[in-house]
Amino acid sequence: MDEAAKKAALRMIPYGLYLVGVRREEVADPAEDRHAFLGSWVTQTSFEPPMVALAVRKGSHGLELLRASRVLSLNLLEAGSTDVARRFIKNVQATGDAMEGLAVEPGPATGAPVFPDLPAHLELEVREIVDAGGDHVIVVAEIVEATHRDNEGLLTSRETGMTYAG
Amino acid sequence: MDEAAKKAALRMIPYGLYLVGVRREEVADPAEDRHAFLGSWVTQTSFEPPMVALAVRKGSHGLELLRASRVLSLNLLEAGSTDVARRFIKNVQATGDAMEGLAVEPGPATGAPVFPDLPAHLELEVREIVDAGGDHVIVVAEIVEATHRDNEGLLTSRETGMTYAG
Repeated sequence: MDEAAKKAALRMIPYGLYLVGVRREEVADPAEDRHAFLGSWVTQTSFEPPMVALAVRKGSHGLELLRASRVLSLNLLEAGSTDVARRFIKNVQATGDAMEGLAVEPGPATGAPVFPDLPAHLELEVREIVDAGGDHVIVVAEIVEATHRDNEGLLTSRETGMTYAG
Repeated sequence: MDEAAKKAALRMIPYGLYLVGVRREEVADPAEDRHAFLGSWVTQTSFEPPMVALAVRKGSHGLELLRASRVLSLNLLEAGSTDVARRFIKNVQATGDAMEGLAVEPGPATGAPVFPDLPAHLELEVREIVDAGGDHVIVVAEIVEATHRDNEGLLTSRETGMTYAG
């Protein structure tokens, strides 16, 4: 295979950037022990019921949490907020009402942490976690709640210059 | 659930547009009986081995073909080519060396039809076809060959105004 061609072709695919919110299963108070990490490999996969797929790196702490809790949130970062994205490249944990300067609260449908100041978020229940032999699993999840505040535009990997593809 | 918020949030996700090339399994000559259809719900899902996931509508002819042949191609449409995308909204079949005015040939690695005049294409072998309960299945496939000709930019759903999301 032409490795350079493969990499160049894959880097043409557009991606948005998201804060993926996860929580521990066993937490009594959903305000406790929230985690979030940056995600980009996302696509819708069904209209009815509404579903998305998200690739999550094997061995990551976020994957461990969502495997146990079976819920997550997908929070759409706003165009122009590369600085926010950078703060979540590593898994971030918080127990208060803010993470890395962003307000955070338990999502009403799932308890997964959501960010009320971001343009939109989806609350998701996991339906399948697929291991097809790669270095990420594919988390297929149904949308059970959604909030949309504005259409200012989603932060894209192209805008940030942070390439997670190839 | 707030249906309008769900739709608006999902429509913020960026998508490229692709010609998905499929073929019949039982064809002796790979130039025979090629099919292609427009796809957009695509994401990379692994670096090593390199893999992508593509959502394909249940009951579609393209899905039937790739279920049997276990191969497909992902051909990246060029920015500015909305007219080409429109011609492939319905499954297109061809037995010659062109489909809807585009040159087509059997991919060397898979025999799936590839379009040598488009900016890039990937040849793929199917690893999993996942039915998570939605109206599309998720085809997870490994990249076995790639060609990249130019970086002129991928046609996006935003550019075309053809929205397949929400």
